[in-house]
This record gives sequence, structure tokens and C-alpha cells, in this order.
Amino acid sequence: MGDGVSIKAGIVGGAGYTGGELLRLLVHHPNVEIAFVHSNSQAGKPVYDVHKDLLGDTELSFTDSLQPDVEVLFLCVGHGEAKKFIEAHDLPQHIKVIDLSQDFRWNESINEATVTEAGRTFVYGLPELQRNAIKEAENIANPGCFATAIQLALLPLAAENLLTDEVHVSGITGSTGAGQSLSATSHYSWRSSNISNYKALNHQHLNEIRRTLQGLQEEKLPEINFVPYRGPFTRGILCTSYLRSNQSLAEATNKYKAFYKEHPFVSISSTTPDLKQVVNTNKCLLYLEKQDKNLVITSMIDNLLKGASGQAVQNMNLLFNLPEKAGLNLKGSAF
Amino acid sequence: MGDGVSIKAGIVGGAGYTGGELLRLLVHHPNVEIAFVHSNSQAGKPVYDVHKDLLGDTELSFTDSLQPDVEVLFLCVGHGEAKKFIEAHDLPQHIKVIDLSQDFRWNESINEATVTEAGRTFVYGLPELQRNAIKEAENIANPGCFATAIQLALLPLAAENLLTDEVHVSGITGSTGAGQSLSATSHYSWRSSNISNYKALNHQHLNEIRRTLQGLQEEKLPEINFVPYRGPFTRGILCTSYLRSNQSLAEATNKYKAFYKEHPFVSISSTTPDLKQVVNTNKCLLYLEKQDKNLVITSMIDNLLKGASGQAVQNMNLLFNLPEKAGLNLKGSAF
Amino acid sequence: MGDGVSIKAGIVGGAGYTGGELLRLLVHHPNVEIAFVHSNSQAGKPVYDVHKDLLGDTELSFTDSLQPDVEVLFLCVGHGEAKKFIEAHDLPQHIKVIDLSQDFRWNESINEATVTEAGRTFVYGLPELQRNAIKEAENIANPGCFATAIQLALLPLAAENLLTDEVHVSGITGSTGAGQSLSATSHYSWRSSNISNYKALNHQHLNEIRRTLQGLQEEKLPEINFVPYRGPFTRGILCTSYLRSNQSLAEATNKYKAFYKEHPFVSISSTTPDLKQVVNTNKCLLYLEKQDKNLVITSMIDNLLKGASGQAVQNMNLLFNLPEKAGLNLKGSAF
Amino acid sequence: MGDGVSIKAGIVGGAGYTGGELLRLLVHHPNVEIAFVHSNSQAGKPVYDVHKDLLGDTELSFTDSLQPDVEVLFLCVGHGEAKKFIEAHDLPQHIKVIDLSQDFRWNESINEATVTEAGRTFVYGLPELQRNAIKEAENIANPGCFATAIQLALLPLAAENLLTDEVHVSGITGSTGAGQSLSATSHYSWRSSNISNYKALNHQHLNEIRRTLQGLQEEKLPEINFVPYRGPFTRGILCTSYLRSNQSLAEATNKYKAFYKEHPFVSISSTTPDLKQVVNTNKCLLYLEKQDKNLVITSMIDNLLKGASGQAVQNMNLLFNLPEKAGLNLKGSAF
Repeated sequence: MGDGVSIKAGIVGGAGYTGGELLRLLVHHPNVEIAFVHSNSQAGKPVYDVHKDLLGDTELSFTDSLQPDVEVLFLCVGHGEAKKFIEAHDLPQHIKVIDLSQDFRWNESINEATVTEAGRTFVYGLPELQRNAIKEAENIANPGCFATAIQLALLPLAAENLLTDEVHVSGITGSTGAGQSLSATSHYSWRSSNISNYKALNHQHLNEIRRTLQGLQEEKLPEINFVPYRGPFTRGILCTSYLRSNQSLAEATNKYKAFYKEHPFVSISSTTPDLKQVVNTNKCLLYLEKQDKNLVITSMIDNLLKGASGQAVQNMNLLFNLPEKAGLNLKGSAF
Repeated sequence: MGDGVSIKAGIVGGAGYTGGELLRLLVHHPNVEIAFVHSNSQAGKPVYDVHKDLLGDTELSFTDSLQPDVEVLFLCVGHGEAKKFIEAHDLPQHIKVIDLSQDFRWNESINEATVTEAGRTFVYGLPELQRNAIKEAENIANPGCFATAIQLALLPLAAENLLTDEVHVSGITGSTGAGQSLSATSHYSWRSSNISNYKALNHQHLNEIRRTLQGLQEEKLPEINFVPYRGPFTRGILCTSYLRSNQSLAEATNKYKAFYKEHPFVSISSTTPDLKQVVNTNKCLLYLEKQDKNLVITSMIDNLLKGASGQAVQNMNLLFNLPEKAGLNLKGSAF
Repeated sequence: MGDGVSIKAGIVGGAGYTGGELLRLLVHHPNVEIAFVHSNSQAGKPVYDVHKDLLGDTELSFTDSLQPDVEVLFLCVGHGEAKKFIEAHDLPQHIKVIDLSQDFRWNESINEATVTEAGRTFVYGLPELQRNAIKEAENIANPGCFATAIQLALLPLAAENLLTDEVHVSGITGSTGAGQSLSATSHYSWRSSNISNYKALNHQHLNEIRRTLQGLQEEKLPEINFVPYRGPFTRGILCTSYLRSNQSLAEATNKYKAFYKEHPFVSISSTTPDLKQVVNTNKCLLYLEKQDKNLVITSMIDNLLKGASGQAVQNMNLLFNLPEKAGLNLKGSAF
Repeated sequence: MGDGVSIKAGIVGGAGYTGGELLRLLVHHPNVEIAFVHSNSQAGKPVYDVHKDLLGDTELSFTDSLQPDVEVLFLCVGHGEAKKFIEAHDLPQHIKVIDLSQDFRWNESINEATVTEAGRTFVYGLPELQRNAIKEAENIANPGCFATAIQLALLPLAAENLLTDEVHVSGITGSTGAGQSLSATSHYSWRSSNISNYKALNHQHLNEIRRTLQGLQEEKLPEINFVPYRGPFTRGILCTSYLRSNQSLAEATNKYKAFYKEHPFVSISSTTPDLKQVVNTNKCLLYLEKQDKNLVITSMIDNLLKGASGQAVQNMNLLFNLPEKAGLNLKGSAF
């Protein structure tokens, strides 16, 4: 399974952060041939002129023309741009699209696929929830980064109708989550050694999270309150969620372990975790505590990998029946 | 008021972080003469051998003997050590003690002073709550850093019996809060670009906070849930608190402004704040938002200043009838 | 001396980094009244809308009109803009100008003042070299940040004709040296945990440095080689300079101590120094070593203070016969 | 070549930083089976208890006993400990030892192997210089991190007798270079946003560098002056070297490209580089400039990879005739 297979892949929006991270993965993926990397702004330049760490890894250059003979197309463009791209291009139906924007995540229920006007259906690509649907899918809407970290923290509870009381979440994200555009909050002199919250109780990923969890849980979902922070680091998201729970720590741990048993990227830690355990990997690490009446779940991912491009490759692996970890046995940076 | 006055001060435990920060303040305080800086471990060495930034500011050396002819004695020793120090030394009653440890913060009610066996009474030194009691006090128990940030966020609500629903707090602290001892979580290679939570829903400052708020509010206090984080920066604490509230944003803002009107170190920001607005100052900055049914209060301080040594000086100023801001008009580092 | 004196000061270009830092100093300076803060881009806004840490310190707002009744005018505008400003405005001659740009630093010799077409003469404002000239000056050209750090490392040698062999300097600067403009190298995701050199052996401050040193030393100056680095921190500059020298460490140390004896902001450290000893102060710290045939001089300053706005205030103090340290007894951030 | 081959490897000193980094590489290496990971201090514990990011990657535990049936043994112990280990254990001669300490780097000339009393010969393992000797070697002395970065910057010049004038090097290292021991200079509160030099012109790697270069160049080697800095980041080394040179930039570039043509981990960048281009990879990136009479060479590596464990794996690949990049196609962290 996987041996000798080679999938032809195209990348649209290859000059941004998620595009670069995808390239870092695909240049070493044993079953992928990168057919083209599209970028209007950088067309003609070697890929390593923009993603300078790729010097020595690839001689690819950016192009402003699309090649139709690919099997999978990754859309790494901004929110809103993916939908426009799909509408503007008459892509052959056999090309599977993996969209990293939020454009096709929104539907009424996780149990229905999003369908575009041109009849292209998108399945929400959270493999730990939807592995089978993804394997059969035509196209994938790749989840958001905070949404991934929070959903993976809560899925095992929703699956057993245990999200019965209000949930409180705080989470801190690195700067790459905001992309490469220059702004006051991405200025080094501002962000270094600084911390700030934003969109408190009002983050756009809450809809995505609620929709998923409600699709899994029969009982009506309680309030989910979320305070996001900008942290002084570049990669990673760490979230802490808590809610009233009657389960003991052992019971909860068993349920989490059972839920994620077949999922190679999720681990339940038995010692206090920290963000850098997952940085530069496609892993999600979970840690459970019971404090008095509350169950506390800490979850963490690398926002550019499990929260974006790594998850996109995981989805590609499933779509093409490759081993789920192909190209994703990454050396963590650890420090 | 203040002109020409000179208070003789002694410092015990001057080689640690809070001792150093106190020295940085007192060497430039217009109304203080530092009589001695006590340290068993560093006795004989110039103060600038340990607190190297003080080279050029003072020629003081550490001593291992105490001088009795001081008017105020700052205890900058570890938790538990302050109580031992007081018990082991027969300090003349005229010496006012300002203790930065937690040893004398604990009593049943904020409305009663803690009294030691030797008859020394300690008043909880949160000036924005207790200014008048502090002015009349014999000795001061200086509040904890997280406790200061969270109390200043909630005091105006407690004062009007508005802490009626469960409160949810998350907060991130810099590394200096853990002092200068070497440990795995203070190792640069670990902490840099990292984030982790600890003592989730179980932080020791919760007792201090609850006791204060309950002393102010007639209604029984609701649960206060607190998730603390270790952040990759050295100075500062930023907390986000939220609770259900019937007040409009305008109503809440007015109450906060009124409550802190006479308190020079607390400001209500009308724009989104960030931690570095208060770093290297004695300020507390508050920011209010209303999100649907919730009131969200962001509060931030420098943990070594308003959360420790700065507040200790503020308390000294009140004890000796100096201007409250004397020696505390600090240039923030801003970056 | 200084008591009760109040100098009326204006600031042009108050919305930038050096303008903000100057405001942080002047709002607490005992002998200054800020008459106006000029900014075309921010006119009408409170100063604390831009320099948010000043909330609670001042109620000043930016203005786009200049007031003529000031005694001193600080120009905190970009390189090239200061000259244009002087040419465009017919400033009364009694207003002393302190220019923080490089526009009036360039003249043939440190021993001559720069004179504008309108007859305004500028003295190079490095107090440790030119204190007397500054006291008599009409206007001041404030030195560059790297230039300050390197000159203070080498002045005592030049003064004794000891710069006889090639000098090698490396130095690392924090991000605030590049100002607040958004750029690829000021992006947090890029600069965090990163290091890079730039303008190796070709930095523009070399001319300024050479001119000064040659003015002091009779012998022809040797080559000065300088490799600057961008460091992952916000404030400060640390430089290491070395050259062949016949002096012993003791001889060199004595010469440095003698040279800086009357200069309150320069200290010679006898223990290995680090940058944070001077951050958020107006100090320059020097450290000498002898390695085999080489004399090694480490020098460090805060680029926004001794390297810009702090030195500007020091120059103002000298111009107006105030104590040299007035308003500059700053609490270092230390961490 | 390489397919299906599986080398049995043992690790001694597996609980430290280089041991952990080696594990991160070997758990994913296609041609390695880790037979044991030795650690006296952590025996019995799962490897992921110490190197927490390895949770999910391996179920190996530390052991305090050695297994003789390995083909290669990595020594990741401290300087001095490797020699003691070799003396204390009667290792079968067929086990090839790769030592990451400095213990067997020291010999008179790069052209002779170091021989222990027990007759074990060590070849200096810098593959870009010694690939053929390494392929035939019995044991490897793995180079130092700064030594690797500086040698790779200067080898092409030494190879052509062009190191004719004094060389000046400055370099900045991340904190992991100092290992995991707790010390004042590894304390987060100290090192964050700080910079300091150490061992100026006196670093222990200078001997290693000089010995290598002199072995390659016929002409007597000139002085090599080196100022090392501790930087506020965890991974990586960036060095700038310069010397007088008669070559044009084009000539020098051609020589460097020719020298490294067959070496897959070294690239010559044509655009200004920065450290993060190599972090979390086994690459060395070089950048050349000509400034007036000087040739300036910037070189950078990840100190834990090309500067330690990555180079050790590269050496193992050569020793066992595996593809040189096997297990070393690493995804850089880039941010």
C-alpha cells in the first residue's frame, strides 16, 4: 500500500505560509510528484526565493499557469479566494480539491457535504472524526487551526453525549496563524514578549466547532466560550477546555484512549504537556485532569501542520488510499 | 507632602528577584535612604555583583547583619521564610514590616488584620481596596501577583454585589514570577517559544482572591475558575475574566471608572490593550467588553512591580504619608 | 541647579519610536514642560492612542501645528526629513534644535560644527566627547545608535593615539533600531529566534565613527571593520571590538576609568556583562579583556535611550545647564 | 543501495540533548533499528518521559545495560566521559563507535587518525572534507558545532592555499549548544531577549578548526580570531568570517560551488540568508560577499543537527554505505 504510487499534485497560492509548509511536506513525500506551484505574485521565481529554507530541496519555480493533468489540487489561498477560484476555473471533475481556506467548511451539518454551484461536493476533513467519509470524498474542506485543536479536545465527549454543561476554553496561538501579511500585531517589536487576547467569546471558529460537535452529539450542545490569545512564538496552538463532568479521571481517560485508538496522530499524555512536544509535527497531544467537579482537557497542535498543511496531506493520504502517515513522520523541533 | 522626608529602609532577602526589583526602585526613590540590604548568601558583595544592572546606581553591599534603626523593613524572602524571620527576630515594634511573601496574607476575612503571636498585626496591602486601612497599618502583607491582577479586575463588581454568576479566568505569567531558582520550566531551551498551563483550576492565589472579594460583597461568592499559563516572556501578567452580566458595557465602564477614580495606577483602556503597555511600570490596565450576555474584563500588570515590589513601595508611600506615586513614575519599556 | 527650572519643549515626529521614547522620558522629567507633540499622521489623537503605554501618564494630543514659543525642539523624523523640515520652516534662532536623524551629523571633522544654509550650526552631541562644546551649542546632531556604542568603546584609545592597528567590530541590534515601519525583517514570524547579518563591512555609521575618532587621534586612523547583526530582541545594542595592543589589561582599564571618570552614564564592568544590564537605561557599559596580543572591548547601550532619545535628553540637560542625569535616573528592566 | 538494509544501533547517553536529537532522527531512519538507549539516570523510563515530543513515535525505554550485538554505537555523553567509557568497556572491535564528544577529535593532524590505547582508531567525521576516509573508518570523532560552521565556511579557501591573511570570525549560538544542565546563562529570565559574548578570541573549537585547515592548506595558517555570542534562541549557529582576498566574488563563488558540488547538505545562497533557513535540517548554508578588499563568508547550521546528531547520522550513513541523506530529508521548521 503506497509503494511505488505517485500522485501528481498542484498547489495554488504557493507563496503564502500554508503553501510553503505544504511544499516542505510534499518535496519529501514518498508518493507525491509536485506538478506545479501556482502563484500570481511570484511567477517565474524559484520556489526557494520565497521559501528560502527550501534551497537544496527543490528546483521548482512558481508558475502563473495551471496544469490540468493533476490528481489533486491544494488551494492555499485566502478566505474567500478559494470560492472565487473554483467559480472562475472549470476544473475537470477528476481533480480532487483540498481547500485550506474556510470557504467550504460551512454547511448546516457535519453530516452533509458542502456542494458548490458547479456540483463539486466538499467533505469536512477532520480525519479523526470523518476518516471513512474522507476516503470516499471528492473534495476536502480542511479544518481551521483553533477548530482542530478544540474539536480534538471535545470529540470523545460529544460522541457519548457528555457535552452537557457549558464549556470554557482558552487558547494561545503562534504568529504564523495570522499569515505573512504585515500588520501592527505581526511587528516583531510589538509581539516579542507580549501577549494579548482578541475576539474574546467571539472567534469565527466557534461556528465550525459547534456545527461539528452538534453533528456528533444527540443532546443539544451547551454554550462554548472561547478566549483566544496571541502568543509570542511562531508555531503552535495550546488550548485548555473545562466543563463540569461526573466522570472520574480514569473513566474519561479510557474513553479518550478508546476514541483515538486507531488514529496515529493523536496521543493522550500521562504527564503534564507543553506546546513544543508537538511543534513541527502533525501530532495532536491531549492531557486530561480532574479538578473537583471539572474535567480539564489540554490539547495542542502545530497550527501550520495538524492545523493546516499537515492535515491537508493527511487528508490527501486518505483520499488516495495511501498510508495515513505517509510523508508525515516528521522530526519535531522539540526546542 | 513628601518634600525633604527621608525614610530609612532595610531589605531582607535582597539577592532575589523581588529584592532586586525593590532596590531598583528605592535607589531612585526621592524619600528613601536604604540603610542595609541583607542577604546571607551574598554578604560582603556589592549589590551590583548580583543585580548587575545596578552598577553605576549604588555602591551598597549586601550584609548579613540587621540594623535596628530603620523605619521600614521589606521582607523579600520565600514563602514560609518570612514567618520564620519574624519569629526568630525580636524586631522593635516601631519598625513597620512590608512582607512580600504569602505568609501573612491568610486570615479569615479581609476585614480583619492578621496578628502574629508576638502581637504584630498585618493589613492586606491592596491599596485600591484598602488605602485607608494601609495608611493606619502597622505592617503590610503585600498581595500576590496573579491575585492582584484578578482582584483589580473584579473589585468594582464585588463592591456592588454583582459577582452573581460563576467567573472564568485565564491568565498568562512571565518567567520572573517563578523567581531565580533553576528548574526545568525556567530553562531557556524549554521555555523559549513554549506555552503550558499549570495548576488548572487549582492555583493557590484563588483563596486569597476569594477571601478579598467575599469581604467586599455581601452575596455569597460564586465559583471562580482560573487557568494559569506559563508564557515565553519574562515580565508581566495578563488575565481575562468573564461572567454573565446584565449590565451594559457603558454601565460597567462607568462603575469601573468611578471605582478607580482616585487610584493613580489603575486605568481603563478604551482600545484593545496588550501586556507591554504596563511592563516596567506600577500600572494596572483594565479593558472591558460585552459579548452577548457576558462581561469580559482584561487586566494586566507587571508581576514584579504592581504584582510585587512596586506595590510594596506604593504601600510604603501610604504607610508614611508620602505621595502615593513617589518613586513610581516609571518609564515603561514599551517594547 | 535645575530646581524649579522648566524648559518648554516641542517634539516633531512624535508618533515614531524615538518620538515615543522621548515622550516617555519627558513626561516624567522634572524640568520640562511639553508644549506640543507634532505629527501629521496622528494629529488630533491623544498621544496614548499611539504610544499606548502612556495612558495614565499624559493627556497630551498630537497636533499638526507648531508653536513658536518653545526653547527646545526635538526632531524625531526620518533621515532626510530633518533637513527638509529645517529648510521649510523659518524657526526663530532662539529655539535650540536637537535632531535625532543623521542629517546634521556629517561634516568634515568633529572639530567643526555643521552649518545649515540658514546659518544654524549643529554640534555633534556625544556628551562623553563633547560635553563642553554641547553646553555652548546652538543645536545638536544626536549620534547614531551603533555609532554611540562603538565610539564609546574606542574613544579612550583614540584620545591617546592608541588606535594604531586595524579594529574589528561585531555588534547585534534589537528590532526597534529599525523603527516602526512594517517590513519582511520586522515580521515577528521571521525575526523571532532568528539571526542575520546585514551591511557587513559596509554600515553607514562607519563614516560617523571614523570622523569622530580621527578628530580625536592625531595618528592616521586604521581600518575599522564592522559586522552588524539583527538580533531577536527589541531593545539594545551589544558590540565587541578588538585590536592588537601593547597595553596590559590593567593599563587599559585605568585609561578607560580615567577617561570616563566624570561621565555618569558610562561604567566599566569588572565582571562579564550582558545586554540586559543596560536595557531601559541611559547607561553605556564597557568591559575589557586582554587575550594574548589583543585588547577586547565589549560595549552595550539601549539603542532607544543612550542610542537615541535618552542621549537627546542628556544633550538637552547640558544645553540648558541642568544636571546631566535629570530625568534619566531610569529603572532598568533587568529582565 | 540502502533498500532493506537495517543497521542495529545503540545509544549511550540517550537522556541528553544530543541523545534526544539522535533518537528523533533514528526512530524515522529507514535503515536503522535502535537496539537500546542507555542512560544511567533514566533507566527503566520510557524514552518519551524524557524526550516528551517522542510520545507516539517510539515505545523504547532507557536501559542501564549495554547490548553487544549492535553494529554502531553512538556516544552522546559529555566531554571526557566518552574516553572513560571506551576505557571502561571492552567493546567488540566490530562495533563502530561514533563519538559526539570532543574526546577523540584531538590529534596532531587531520591526516592521521586518533588511536586509543586499546587500538581503536578514530577518524574526524567532517564528511565534506573526509568522505572517503569516513567510508573506510572504524570509528568516528564527530566535529564540534561551531567548528563545523566555521570549517565549512573556510575549507574551499584552505583547499587552494588561499587562507593567506588573518581571518576574523563572529558567531552566535542558540541555547541548546550548552546542553540541558541548569545554569545562570540557561535561565529563561536571563537569556530571553539578551545577548552576551564569551570566550572572546579564546574558544576551545579554535584548535579543532586550525588543525583541520592546516591539514588541508600547505601554507602556514594565519591567525583565526573568533568572537562567539550566546543568542536568545534555542537552535542554530550563524557565523560571519572575513579576510583580505584578491579573488572577485564570481571567482570565489565558483570555487565554493565546485568544492561542495558533490555534497548534498551544503548550499551556496545567492540571496541574503538568515539562520532559520537551516533550523531543524542537516543543511549548511553559505553566502559570499565581497566588500572592498575583503571576502565575507556567512555560514549557518543547526547546532543539534549538522553540528551534532545530524552529522553523526550522516557519518553513520557513510560508514555503512547507505545513501548519505538517508533519514536526513528533514522538514525545516522555517519559523
